[in-house]
Order: sequence, then structure tokens, then C-alpha cells
Amino acid sequence: MADLTVDDVAPKSAVADDFYDDYGDTLREECGVFGIYGHPDAAAITALGLHALQHRGQEAAGITTYDGSRFHSERRLGLVSDAFSDGDAIKRLPGHIAVGHVRYSTTGETILRNVQPLFAELDGGGFAIAHNGNLTNGLTLRRQLIRDGAICQSTSDTEVMLHLVARSKRPRFTERFVDALRSIEGAYAFVGLTNKKLVGARDPLGIRPLVLGELDGHPILTSETCALDIIGARHVRDIEPGEVIVFSSDKVETLRPFGSVPPRPCIFEYIYFARPDSVVGGRSVYQVRKTMGMQLAAEAPADADLVVPVPDSGVPAAIGFSQASGLPYELGIIRNHYVGRTFIQPTQSVRDQGVRMKHSANRAVVEGKRIVLIDDSLVRGTTSVKIVRMMREAGAREVHFRISSPPITHPDYYGIDTPDRDKLLAATHDLEGMRRYIGADSLAFLSIDGIYKSMGYEGRDPVCPQFTDHCFTGEYPTPLTDREGEVSPRQLSLLAEAS
Amino acid sequence: MADLTVDDVAPKSAVADDFYDDYGDTLREECGVFGIYGHPDAAAITALGLHALQHRGQEAAGITTYDGSRFHSERRLGLVSDAFSDGDAIKRLPGHIAVGHVRYSTTGETILRNVQPLFAELDGGGFAIAHNGNLTNGLTLRRQLIRDGAICQSTSDTEVMLHLVARSKRPRFTERFVDALRSIEGAYAFVGLTNKKLVGARDPLGIRPLVLGELDGHPILTSETCALDIIGARHVRDIEPGEVIVFSSDKVETLRPFGSVPPRPCIFEYIYFARPDSVVGGRSVYQVRKTMGMQLAAEAPADADLVVPVPDSGVPAAIGFSQASGLPYELGIIRNHYVGRTFIQPTQSVRDQGVRMKHSANRAVVEGKRIVLIDDSLVRGTTSVKIVRMMREAGAREVHFRISSPPITHPDYYGIDTPDRDKLLAATHDLEGMRRYIGADSLAFLSIDGIYKSMGYEGRDPVCPQFTDHCFTGEYPTPLTDREGEVSPRQLSLLAEAS
Amino acid sequence: MADLTVDDVAPKSAVADDFYDDYGDTLREECGVFGIYGHPDAAAITALGLHALQHRGQEAAGITTYDGSRFHSERRLGLVSDAFSDGDAIKRLPGHIAVGHVRYSTTGETILRNVQPLFAELDGGGFAIAHNGNLTNGLTLRRQLIRDGAICQSTSDTEVMLHLVARSKRPRFTERFVDALRSIEGAYAFVGLTNKKLVGARDPLGIRPLVLGELDGHPILTSETCALDIIGARHVRDIEPGEVIVFSSDKVETLRPFGSVPPRPCIFEYIYFARPDSVVGGRSVYQVRKTMGMQLAAEAPADADLVVPVPDSGVPAAIGFSQASGLPYELGIIRNHYVGRTFIQPTQSVRDQGVRMKHSANRAVVEGKRIVLIDDSLVRGTTSVKIVRMMREAGAREVHFRISSPPITHPDYYGIDTPDRDKLLAATHDLEGMRRYIGADSLAFLSIDGIYKSMGYEGRDPVCPQFTDHCFTGEYPTPLTDREGEVSPRQLSLLAEAS
Amino acid sequence: MADLTVDDVAPKSAVADDFYDDYGDTLREECGVFGIYGHPDAAAITALGLHALQHRGQEAAGITTYDGSRFHSERRLGLVSDAFSDGDAIKRLPGHIAVGHVRYSTTGETILRNVQPLFAELDGGGFAIAHNGNLTNGLTLRRQLIRDGAICQSTSDTEVMLHLVARSKRPRFTERFVDALRSIEGAYAFVGLTNKKLVGARDPLGIRPLVLGELDGHPILTSETCALDIIGARHVRDIEPGEVIVFSSDKVETLRPFGSVPPRPCIFEYIYFARPDSVVGGRSVYQVRKTMGMQLAAEAPADADLVVPVPDSGVPAAIGFSQASGLPYELGIIRNHYVGRTFIQPTQSVRDQGVRMKHSANRAVVEGKRIVLIDDSLVRGTTSVKIVRMMREAGAREVHFRISSPPITHPDYYGIDTPDRDKLLAATHDLEGMRRYIGADSLAFLSIDGIYKSMGYEGRDPVCPQFTDHCFTGEYPTPLTDREGEVSPRQLSLLAEAS
Repeated sequence: MADLTVDDVAPKSAVADDFYDDYGDTLREECGVFGIYGHPDAAAITALGLHALQHRGQEAAGITTYDGSRFHSERRLGLVSDAFSDGDAIKRLPGHIAVGHVRYSTTGETILRNVQPLFAELDGGGFAIAHNGNLTNGLTLRRQLIRDGAICQSTSDTEVMLHLVARSKRPRFTERFVDALRSIEGAYAFVGLTNKKLVGARDPLGIRPLVLGELDGHPILTSETCALDIIGARHVRDIEPGEVIVFSSDKVETLRPFGSVPPRPCIFEYIYFARPDSVVGGRSVYQVRKTMGMQLAAEAPADADLVVPVPDSGVPAAIGFSQASGLPYELGIIRNHYVGRTFIQPTQSVRDQGVRMKHSANRAVVEGKRIVLIDDSLVRGTTSVKIVRMMREAGAREVHFRISSPPITHPDYYGIDTPDRDKLLAATHDLEGMRRYIGADSLAFLSIDGIYKSMGYEGRDPVCPQFTDHCFTGEYPTPLTDREGEVSPRQLSLLAEAS
Repeated sequence: MADLTVDDVAPKSAVADDFYDDYGDTLREECGVFGIYGHPDAAAITALGLHALQHRGQEAAGITTYDGSRFHSERRLGLVSDAFSDGDAIKRLPGHIAVGHVRYSTTGETILRNVQPLFAELDGGGFAIAHNGNLTNGLTLRRQLIRDGAICQSTSDTEVMLHLVARSKRPRFTERFVDALRSIEGAYAFVGLTNKKLVGARDPLGIRPLVLGELDGHPILTSETCALDIIGARHVRDIEPGEVIVFSSDKVETLRPFGSVPPRPCIFEYIYFARPDSVVGGRSVYQVRKTMGMQLAAEAPADADLVVPVPDSGVPAAIGFSQASGLPYELGIIRNHYVGRTFIQPTQSVRDQGVRMKHSANRAVVEGKRIVLIDDSLVRGTTSVKIVRMMREAGAREVHFRISSPPITHPDYYGIDTPDRDKLLAATHDLEGMRRYIGADSLAFLSIDGIYKSMGYEGRDPVCPQFTDHCFTGEYPTPLTDREGEVSPRQLSLLAEAS
Repeated sequence: MADLTVDDVAPKSAVADDFYDDYGDTLREECGVFGIYGHPDAAAITALGLHALQHRGQEAAGITTYDGSRFHSERRLGLVSDAFSDGDAIKRLPGHIAVGHVRYSTTGETILRNVQPLFAELDGGGFAIAHNGNLTNGLTLRRQLIRDGAICQSTSDTEVMLHLVARSKRPRFTERFVDALRSIEGAYAFVGLTNKKLVGARDPLGIRPLVLGELDGHPILTSETCALDIIGARHVRDIEPGEVIVFSSDKVETLRPFGSVPPRPCIFEYIYFARPDSVVGGRSVYQVRKTMGMQLAAEAPADADLVVPVPDSGVPAAIGFSQASGLPYELGIIRNHYVGRTFIQPTQSVRDQGVRMKHSANRAVVEGKRIVLIDDSLVRGTTSVKIVRMMREAGAREVHFRISSPPITHPDYYGIDTPDRDKLLAATHDLEGMRRYIGADSLAFLSIDGIYKSMGYEGRDPVCPQFTDHCFTGEYPTPLTDREGEVSPRQLSLLAEAS
Repeated sequence: MADLTVDDVAPKSAVADDFYDDYGDTLREECGVFGIYGHPDAAAITALGLHALQHRGQEAAGITTYDGSRFHSERRLGLVSDAFSDGDAIKRLPGHIAVGHVRYSTTGETILRNVQPLFAELDGGGFAIAHNGNLTNGLTLRRQLIRDGAICQSTSDTEVMLHLVARSKRPRFTERFVDALRSIEGAYAFVGLTNKKLVGARDPLGIRPLVLGELDGHPILTSETCALDIIGARHVRDIEPGEVIVFSSDKVETLRPFGSVPPRPCIFEYIYFARPDSVVGGRSVYQVRKTMGMQLAAEAPADADLVVPVPDSGVPAAIGFSQASGLPYELGIIRNHYVGRTFIQPTQSVRDQGVRMKHSANRAVVEGKRIVLIDDSLVRGTTSVKIVRMMREAGAREVHFRISSPPITHPDYYGIDTPDRDKLLAATHDLEGMRRYIGADSLAFLSIDGIYKSMGYEGRDPVCPQFTDHCFTGEYPTPLTDREGEVSPRQLSLLAEAS
């Protein structure tokens, strides 16, 4: 899901600039979803599943259950372990069916009304839905709905789905749900809940992931296999691109309303988002990343003494690079795992020396050495600048920066929070310009074909690319209706509401 | 406004029984509203106005403003002085137009989604509305709307108005608002806000109050004059029954879409709800109550030594009774003004002695005396039982209970929280039965004509009663569509959500 | 008890000036105490008792219990009903003996470390103490203790008692406690707790009150009888001035270490502090106040139409004045009982019109009338100025101000929070000057002999006054060692610590 | 510092058993300290320093400053980044001198009164102190002090120091401080603050670490060099064992009141506690740990396919083991960095399958493989059991467990939180017993001489061991007075107080 009002909102004042300096230089997935059908501990299991998906969204979490007579919902800002670890929250969520959601908000507007699952009371009963992805015609649909008398309570594109289902004239819920899916474009993994059914859907290209699991005979739908592992559930299979699956008490229905199109899952799940212990599309994420590091070592070797990962994102690729190159793997950078809120900064003089909140140099390792720094991606480059400088101040003799993915030149519209194009370092600098900007002795990226080779292909199929890779290539796999129609979020008279 | 799901909800577990023992034996207004147009401090003034209306609703409060480009809303559980006294909340509410609301919830479901003002984004822009009253066809309309594909996010009847306005096909906002009013039945005082207008409306019979004030040339709409007094605003006039008033930058429009019908304001505003320093319908509430006490002394004198008010509700009538009877007025009961949350109770033996959380006897006054206890109304009678017993334990020789209004025999459906009929003492007991139940030596009520005399009439006009008085007479002034259509709130598959 | 550092501390910034405008014009007692011995619900009963004493201190509350093997303590900022109404707090306070305290802090330093009961581990076991009053040699003793190697953790004078008991060389606890009492001067009602005993002590002159009650055979020590009434406990007798009382499992010990001196209780308990339903020194507080109003009507009659109390402080005296003068008693001023935190104020223009947060005029009563305003005391006069102006703006034709106590010309050092002398209106203005300052048509005070007459005496005994009345007369009943020795609190290197 | 009442306190009920299952199987340092003299941003810099020391204590943090006229203190439960990142807390801590403390509590009694720095007002002014370590005669001294009339407000052994300084009869502060040091035994790194001085002291054997840094000419005392690195401060030197250092405006004084004894720093700082990027006693902690892993590979090789670290504690040793053995280093276990509070657990059936809150298996890596698991120490063994089982369930063919330190057979009394002896796996099982208990195919520990070799020695000097290593050897370097004198904490009548 995505907020429809990204441009309209000032950054949360409580979050200092420095925070964005540190974190603004990454890509961020916006959501993870989880649903389970028929289990007596549905809410408790969903909370654990969401906890395992916490890397997909840290700003808010929600769970909705149905107990046989009514729906219950708890939606909170903050981490799953803060909001849902206590018995109280779980006790307020009775029932055998549950859907849950973790969210990373792209804006300052993390208000409770936007936290998912969203709920609507339909003619036939209640319906709750959780969404990972982004609809590329969400604003266009919302504008039509409002013209038609609909009332939108959230600023989330996901609410459009509720209205479409509510307005469908088809008699059965599943038909209405499919009706609604036919109207939307973009990327989505939905899990939904009615008083009878657990429903899941994945977009026709399979841009966002969704897997089917099973625990004691009860089906689970979730974004990643790591959410199955945490509770000891079995990974049955991936939900297929374009598949709609509906669980009810006496049957499982599978529909394919979009027929069969070549799938094109998002390559960034492998490069960055998914947890390394997850299996996505049949591939171990850890092994893919390690292979990218090995491929990178082959494509762009460095004459150096040791390999240093940028923790934690660069670790698997650095292990691969080390194994392929024979250069020893060393922890030249230590990460402080207690980084939480941003500290106010002391005076300018101290600030100028650079405060190392998140990373610190392990001088004993890097002093006097030629190092290969490995990271998984380069977005704005601001963090890389700091890290290279930190390595040099710790005495590194040479710093060779290697990125285990290609240059990011285009923004995403499918649920990944990317900076505007003019903030993407690779969109505005050539390779040498980037090298100078980050201050490295050398800089190299994994090639686009290198990525595909790491995935087990000969290379990228230019006619029908195997993955959604527009961030590297500019080739968007779906229409971008909102963007083309120039629907500006500024036209909305929005309600700003604190939680 | 009212929750549509009264029956469906268990009492809030955090509130102990004792709380309901004390408080369940009163009537409670459900809301107060306030709106101001064109003032640079719109939110701060609204907060003060709501604070003056706090007696009309203590469970939640909200303010919505428009700042020329977007709407801002803050809605909180708790008292106005807790939620809106700090600069932070007010700073988040910029703008020159504001509407606000205090709410007393009739159910355990005081969830943030139900706290008003409610907001919707319409085709032409945002619209926020606050409501005092209750729609007697709210559930019926809601059912039709949901069948028609509407999504209801709150369980409040007020949301129906948002949908009706959103779905009206008329081009101008005012026309759409009047369109919506034509569909609803019951009691209401609305104040609403668009990006251009402040709008107010009072139901055709004027059941709920709404007054027009003025501060430095800026118009104010609010439930009671005490909300004008707190900020030094001038009371211009009452909004007339059936009047719709619309303020915009260049004009004031007044509409009377319902023509002219004899007004019939709710008598309970005089007896119980309004603050004694308010002027309602041209009458001082304090003077009306005092006159009721004087009338009561004439109708039902008592051979006693002194007059004791049940604080604070019985104070004005007790002053009137004392003046008319010549019996001295004395504080025989002291109220603890720090009563907040309910305490957990010690062991049964202590509990049996009765814990006096709210009231305590002033033994020095009542010991050995024959007292006349004065209260303004008798609902369940549970508090009266305790107070009579407390007076006897403090040594009162005789206790004569006098009520400055008639017996309540019928529930309300216009925004007053009354118990079910079988819980109303006067609906199930005759006078002698009531006297025995509460344990008084004598018991008397003000007659229905006595009420009308206290209001300046000869008596009640049986053909066209001057006030809404169904609680005493069973004569409801409007259709009760939901009740007749037997729309049960249990048919709704509700979402239970903690705030 | 009192903070030792009054002068040294800036006012709490969170509390706006306006708050002090409203409230700074009153006297404030600093504390209430409660202790119970041998009851299975000791903590729950203590919480209820403290709740009944809430008028004696609203800023913090604490309870300490002993469960047979260890002590438990909960100390919180805020009201008793917020801090101790939930089962959780009470569950953390097991045991059959409890002492509790409510506190009003004279300074911004309401930090948790200063909240009572204070606790120390002595050689023979733990000791907790709660204190109402103020030691006039507290700073002097503290300085000596620190010179002698003592560590003071609070800034409260009560801690001095802990050190004195700890350092006494006597073998038995009771002897050590009496030893400590011999060192201190000033006003005190102590209740204390050891692992075997509940102990109480009242200063030799009985300046601060302490009463003995009994519940189901278990003794209670507390500041006022209203704390007995709330739980249905019996008032046995007052603890006598100079009496030390010790309850243990097998006996009650009463000691009189100071022999017999004529008692001199504080007159302000009757005039202002005690709750009207309390019985202090055998007199009903309500009746005393009413008698003061009657006496005032005799001493200073007014040619007027009605009597209006300043709520709630002036109510009993106004009833007395009305009965004695025959002028009708009317609620010309309405008090908003929801006053909590101070609101931020809108623009100057609104502020100039005067925001009526706490009191509002009942125009229907006062318009065109000559009124007698009754209040119980006059401190700075700032509130009186506002109230007189409010009455005139509401149309009062004449405003005659009557105060049911004499002019306050001297500050207190015995536990009442009075402004510095130069802030006391009566210390800097003569009667006519005061009248002009508050803007009344006439002003009169009850005479000092009038006070004593209201208490049942012929008048004040100038040789041996029956009450502590230095605020009116300047005659302090004890040495003021700290003041004479010029021990400045500024010499202390204080620790400022937020709670 | 340490609580004196370890035995007396039940585990915090809010923390579920599962938490202790996970975390109870580690050693935990109890504290970190930081102090700075003369810097305008003293508090902000201290907050950053404490943040870098967060691994040494996560339960509470405190900072005390002196601003030239008074002391300020803020002490909070929770993480530094939660408590001290906002401007508000820092604004309340003005001044150029600051000391700070992070604390891990060994008991459920993390109450605010125990949070350091502790403060006392001495005859000459205030004194604040923060302590890392534990006094082995703390209870004995406390008992003597209480007998002598001292009042202890905390249950921390650190408070003993305050009393000893307060009671010293020496005229100058430094002399009094040294006087106090002469009375205490055990392990300590103190930083303290007066209105003129910053003072530091390290115990005669240097058991606990303390380093001297410098920022813009202002001296810093802190537990580890990583707290210097975060703010860009320079590491000047380690404070020497037995050294007392005093900074004032015009000079630096160094005293050696204990003469010269062979130092014996705690070996566990190298094995477990210090952050890998810190330099302790001139050695890089990371390099030492890596060397231990290399030494372990030499002493106890394994016939396996790959090396898997137990994250994060086993990482450096696993890198060393991998490099020495030639076996590839792979992330076979993934750590969830969002682990916060413990979740309530679903039904037994789910629980039996094992919920992987903290660690999850990376099946793709370990399936079908023979793995060497590396961890830094083995305490109770409960986590090891789970991890071995998790590896087998993920398909590992063989699991060889290697620990890069010797078996822990004796508890610590110097500030490390160790289980009682009977809970230490190595104290109750021989090697084969341990192997069976944890379920590994083989198990080996680094030898005691291997540890010394990794530190650059030939081996352990049995006459005068170079390190404090009693956990492995039972040879305690100081008297254990409290233990020998059988001072039971149960003799103390403690006060249990919630924060």
C-alpha cells in the first residue's frame, strides 16, 4: 500500500534531519502482510508472523480478527514487539481468522487512520484488508469514487479496494473482490478477511511476493517464508502471479482472473528487501546475495588486502566476494544495534568531527590496509560518503567500493520508497562522478546481466525481462496511470490528523 | 449524535460497577458543539468553548480547522482541559475556521474513530461535521447506504450525514447539505465546516439547542450561551428550529427548508442538562430551576426542619424550595470534587459499610433533624437509595424526598442517554412503591403542569405541547423509524477497535 | 512537611502564569496523612482515606506498607484517584500496616524523591514516615547533620526526622522516635511505620490536626475525620497536642514527652483547610464557618438585595450571612468543576475581555442587583479583583465584599503555603486601600474577636491565645530558628531532578 | 555497581520466562560510565558516550551535571536513545561537567532510586558518582553504616561510597574520596562529580576498565574507547589500576593510594563484554576474539564443511576459526534485530515446535552440511540446546560446537551477572555430559592457556596470573568479605518501590 499524498506532507518534525541523513540513503519496502485461517490462536500467531516481517515496515502494525460474531481490530504505531507482545492486545483480538500488516510510511503522515488492516462494513458483512504494494492508478480511482459520492477516510490507496468491493454489483463476495481487482493497476499482495473467508491475491506480474504456508492444517498467507519459519509452519508454495485464493470452512478456491502472463517479480526483493533466510521464488535470498558478491568479484576485482561489508546490508555479498576473490573477510565496520531515535547534536565543532551513531570504524582491522567495501545498493550516496571518510580516518590506505547491484537510475512506483530521480546519485552522475562524490579510490557496480546471472539466467531477456527491474533500466512493467494523468495529490483537500 | 450500536456492546471493563451505580442513575446529554468563522485563534477559542460545554460530554473531544489550504483535526479521549490545553495541540490546528465537539458516549465503544468532528473529502473539497442529538432513522439510512456500496468507518449516526451530503447530486454545497437534512429524522444541532463555509442547522422542532454568538465581529455557533460567556462573546440570538445558517467570507445565508412548524424544544435542557448560568430559549436556566423548586414547595410542602440539596444537581431547586417554604437551606451533603476513576474496593466488610466516594453526610447539620432532600430528577433511583440511607445513618430523624420534575416513565431517543424502560423506577413502581424503594418518609414529584407553570405557561397544551416531554408523557414528537422498522443494531457486523 | 528550598526554585514552567493568577490567591495546606494498623486491606483503605484528604494536597501521593517481611512503597505525582485507584498499584502494596500521604508542594520541585512517605532502613529495620506541618528548625538541623556526614536524599524537612531517629543511641524504636521529636521545633502531625508498629505524633501545641479512628477494631491515624467517614470508620478521639501514640500487635502506648502545655491549634483549619464535613477539635467545620458568616452579618451588615458566595470557599459563610441578615442566598457565580490544566490563551484582544475558566457570572441573578459577595479569606486579592469586575460586567448595581476572617498580615511557617509578606494585600494596604484595589463598593472583614466568638469564646485571650493565629496577629507560637539563624536555603548545593 | 539484594527479589513479573530462557544464558556486564570536564555540551556528549556504551547496560541510564551553581540530574529506565535523545532532557542538564551511567540490573529491582549517578549533598557541596563493578565488602560496610545511624536510600552498593565520603573527617574532597576508597574491596571504575572537580578511580587490580580521552582539550573518563570514537574524541591512555585522577579548572592530579601491585584486569572484557571496536589494555578486542577463534581451530579442529557463528557473539571468533581452518564462513543463523519484549506464546502445540524469536536457521546454508558452530562462551547452555536443535531441524548433517573460551565453573562477584554455581553447565557436567546436554556431535572449549596465548602470553602465570579469570579457575583475586562474613541480604528490611 502507499499513501496517496506523498508530496503534500512535511517531514515529521520530531525526526531530526540527521535521521534522514542516515536512513534516507536506503530503499524501503512499505509493507508486509500475514493472514491465517481457522487457528484458535490466530492473533498470537499473526503477531509472531508480523514480528518476523518487521524488516518490511517499522512504523506501524495492525491485526484484525473475526470471532464468529464480530470483528476486532488493533492498530498501533511502532514495532510489533511493542504493540502486540503483551497479552492485553492479543486478548482483545479473539477469533480463528486473522490478518495483519506491518507498514513503513513514506511520509510524516503515519496516522492511525492509515494503519492497516483497513475495514469496511459491506452489505453482506465486514471486510478487512491488508496490502503490500502500490496501485499505479490509485489516485485516479479515488478521484472517480469521490465524484461518485464515496467518502474516503484514509489517505491510503488500499482504501480504494474497499470502495470497489463495496460498490460491485455482483452477489458473491469473491466475485466482488475479483471485480475490484480488475479495476486496479500496479503491484499488490493482498490478504483479506470476511466473516467467512480468508482471501489472498497477488498482482498479475507477481511484482510483490506472497507465499502459502500451513500450520497444523491451517492455511497461512504471508509476504515471506521467514514469517512461516518463526512459528514452525511449513512453506507449501508461492501464490502465483495473478492468483486469487479463497479459504473458507469447507473448501479452497483458486482463481486466475487475469489468465496467464509471464511473471515478472521485483528484483529488489532479492537484492535488498527480503530477509536473508527467506526463500523467494524458490531461491534462497542469502545464496542469491552471496552469488551476487561472487559475480561482482569476477566482474570488478580489486587489488586489496581485505573485504569489509557495510553492515548489515552488505554482509552476504561480502562473504561471496571474499570467497570468490580469496581476500579475507573482516569486520572493519561495527554497527551499533541500539540505534533508535536520533540524538540532538552537540555544538558544530563536535558535529564536524562526525558523530558515529550507527556505524563505527574498527581501526585495528583497517589501519594501513587496502580494503574492498561491499554494499548491496547505492541510492543517494550520502551514507557511502560518510563510510568512506570514516574508513580513511581509521587509517585505510585504499578504499575500493563495490556495489552488488547496478546503478539505480529510476524511481519505483510499486511500493518501494525511492527518492525523487534528482536525488538518485546514479541518475545525475556518471561512474567517475559517483566515485569522486563518495571519495573512493575505485567504484564498481554489478552489471545488469550480472544480476540475472546470479539468478541463474544467461542474462536479461530484453524482450521479456524475467524480473521487474525498472530502477536499473527505466522499463516499467505496468501503465503508470496516475503519473500520466497527472493526478496531483495536491488536488486533494486533505485532513491532517495526529494519531 | 449517537452510537448506532448501543445494545451490542459490553460495558467498558476498566470502569467498575460502582461507577455505574453512582453515575448510571443520571441522565446524560451526549454532546456539545462549537464553531467559529474567521477568527485568527479559531482553535484556541473553540477549545475554550468546548471546555465550557464539558458538562455535556466528558469522554472525548475533537476540533477540526481549515487553514486556507488543508484541514486539520485533533480528536482525543478525555477532557478538553487535558487534550487541548497545551500549546502543542492548538499549534497543530491552524486556521480561521474551526468546529469542535465534546462527546459523552452511551457505550463502552468510545473509540477514536467515533470521536467527532467527523470528516469526509467530497468532490468539491473536505467537509467536517459535529452533531448534538440523535437521528431516529439513522440505522435505516445506514442500512440503505451500505446496500448501495457506501463504506461506514464509524458506528456513529452522524456519519450518515456525511454520506448523504457526498451522494447528493446537487451542485452547490449548501444545497447538498439541505438535501441531506431532508432525509433525516430526529433531533440535531449540527455545526459543519468546509473550505469556505461554517454551517449550522437545528432540527425542525428545535429539540436540541443551538445559539448564535459573536466575538469581535466573528460569528459563533454553539450549544449553550455559557460557551460564549467564557470567551466574552456576545449572545446574538438562538438559531431557530428548522433553521439552516451558512457563513461564508462575504455573506450570511439563512434557510428554512422545513417551513414553519411550532417549535418543541427538549424540556430536559432546563431541568438537567444546560449549565445554570446558560440562557436557553430566552430563559435563565438557574431561574427556571429555582422556580421549579418554589413550585414544588407549593405543590408538595413538607413538615421539616431544613432543606438539603443533593449536590450539585439539586442546588438551584433547593434554594427555590427553601425560599418558598421558609425552611433553612443547609449543606447536609458534601460532594468530593476530586472523584475521578473508581477505586478498587477493599473487602466485603468494608464495602458493606458503604464507601462514600462522591457524597458524604454532614452529620453536624442533619443529626436529629427532619430534612427535605431536593433533587432534580429520579431515574433508576439507585443513588437516591444510597443518599437516603446515608442521611439516616448520619442521624436524620425524617427524610422527605422531593423531585423538581415529574416521574420519568419513557426512554429518550433524541440524544439523551436513558436506561431501558424496565430500569426506570417510575415505569415500574407507583409513587408509594418508589417511596418504599428509596426508603424515604415521604416522596413527591413536581407535576407535569407544574413544570409548564415554572416555564411561564398556564400549563401543558395537550393539543400542541410547548416542549418535548415524552420522558414524562410518552408522547414522542417525531417518527421513530428505526424502532418501528425494528432495525436491530445486532445486524451490523461491527468492528471493535480499541483507541 | 515542607521543602527546604522554597526560595531556590523557579516555578514549574509547565504551569502557566494564569494558573498562579487563579490559584496563587489562596492559602494552601501542604499535606494530609493516614495510617492504619492490622487491617488485611491496609493499602486499599489508605488510598480511600487519602482520596478523602485530597483537598489537603493534590500534587503527589504515596503509600508505604509492611507485609511481615518487607516494605513496599508507591509514590506518584498527581491525584490519588489517578495513581491508586487501579488494582495494580494496590496489589504492589501488600501488608496489614500502611501509612500514606498527600502532598501539595510549595515549589516547582515536586520530584518523586520528595514525595512521602519517606523511608529509611535503620539498624533495627525499616522506618517510613509521613508528615503534615513544617519544622521551623529544619534547615538548621539539616546543616548540622550534613556537617556530621549525613547524606540527604530529599529536599524535604521530613527527612531530618529519619536521620534523627537513625542517629539516636537509644535502644528501642519508640525511645529513638521521641529522642528525635525532642530536637525538632514547629508544627507536625506524623504517622510512621516500622516492621512492628504504627506510630503517630502531634506537635506540643497541636498546631496541625491528627485524629484517631477505628475500623473493625483496627486503629487509624489521620488528619481529618472525613477520611474516616469515607470508609465508614468510627472517630474515636483527637490525638492530643504533644501526644505520641504507638500501636503494636499486643498493645497501645501513649506518651507525653512534652508534659502538658496549653494547646493552640491552627485557626486556619477551621477557616479554610478542613473539609466542611470534618469535625476538628470537637467542632463541626461547616457550623463554625456558617457561624463566622452569621457573626460577619452582625459585625458588618450590608444594605443589599442578595448574598452571593464565592464558590466553593465562601459557601458556608454565605449561608450563615444569609440566614442572619435575611437577605436571600443566590448562586450569582457558577464554578466550572472541570477546571484542570490551564489553557493557552488566544490573542490579547480575547484575553483582555477576560477568560472565565474557573468562575462565570450568573447574569440572570445579579443583573441590576446590589449584592453581598462572601469569601472566607483574602490573600493577594487578585481573584477578588477579577470576581468583582465580573459581577459588575454582569450588571450588579453594587458589590459589597465581606470576608469571613480577619485581614492576613503575616506569613505562615507551619505548613501553610502563604505568599511573601509583600504580596499579602492586607500587609501593604489599609482597609480603604484594599477596597479600592479590589474595586468593591464596600469591604469588611470579620474581626479577630469575631473569629474567637464563632469558636465559642468570649474573644481572644491575649495572654494565652486559644489558637495559632499569627497570620492575623503576627504572634508566632514557637521559635523560628531557621529564620532567626538566617539559614538560607541558597547555601545548599541542590540537586534538580525531574521525576 | 551492584544491587545488594540480589537474592531477595523475585524476577520481574512483566518479563516472561521465555525471556530468561533466551537471555538468561549469557553473561551480562552491569554498567558503563562516562564523565567529561569543562565542555559546553557536557550533557549531550555524555548522552552520546552512554549510547556507545549501551551494550554494557540496557535497563536504565542517568546523567548528572553541574552548571556552576547547582546540580542537575536525569535518571530514566530504558535505553539512552529513548531517554536522552530529545532536546528536552538535555536542556534540563545544563553545565560544563557531567557524569553518566548505563546500568544493567541483576534483579527485578530496577527502580529509579537505584539508577545512577547517585547524589549526595556533603558538607562542602554536592557529589555525584557513577560506578561500574561490584564491592565485595559492600554489604558489610552498609551494615556498619546503618548501625552507625546512616540512612540508605538505594539498595546499591555504590551508595556506600557516598556515605564513606560524607563521613570522612578529612578536610579536602580528594582526601575524603581516597579515604573512602581505602575502605572498600572489589572491583570498580568510578567517575564522580563535585562542584569543582571530575574524579575517576580504578580498583587496584584494574579489574574493571577505565580510559582517559580528550575532546577539544577537555578530558573524558569512560569505560571503553568506543565511547570516545562516537564523538571523535582521542584516546589518551588507560587509567591505571589503582589510579585516582582528579580534574579541576587549573590542574590534573594523579594519585596512587594503593602503591603498585601487579594488575589483573578481567579477561571477560576481551571475551565477551567490550565492543569489538574498542581497544582494551592496548589490545583490539576484535583481534583478540579473532585470535581466540584461530587458536581454537588449532586446539580443536573439526572435520566439517563450513563455519557458522552464533550471532552476534560468535562472529569474530568464527571469522578467526574460518581463516585458520580454511573452512568457509557462512551465515547459517540469522538474527532478528527487532527482538524487543517477549511475546505471549500461542498454544502448547505451537510452542512445542519452538518459536524462533531471536534466531532463525538459514536452511539453504546448513541443509545437508557438517557445520562448526562457534560461540564465545557457554553459561547455562539453554540457548545452545535450542540452536543445535534448530540447526538439525534445518538439515545440518553434523553439528560441532566450539566455544572460544574455557568452561565457566565459578560465579563472578565483580560486576558480572552470572547464574548461581549450580546453574553453570560446566560446574555440574563434564565435557561429555555437556556435549550430550546440548546435543552436539562434538564439543570443545578453548583451553585456559589458549586464552593467555591469544592475549600474547606463553600461557597463564600460575603464581601471578595476568588476568582475573576466576570464572574459569576459581581463583578470586580479592577477599570476598560479604560472602565469608555470611552477610545475607535477607537481613536487610528492604523497601520495594516501583519506579
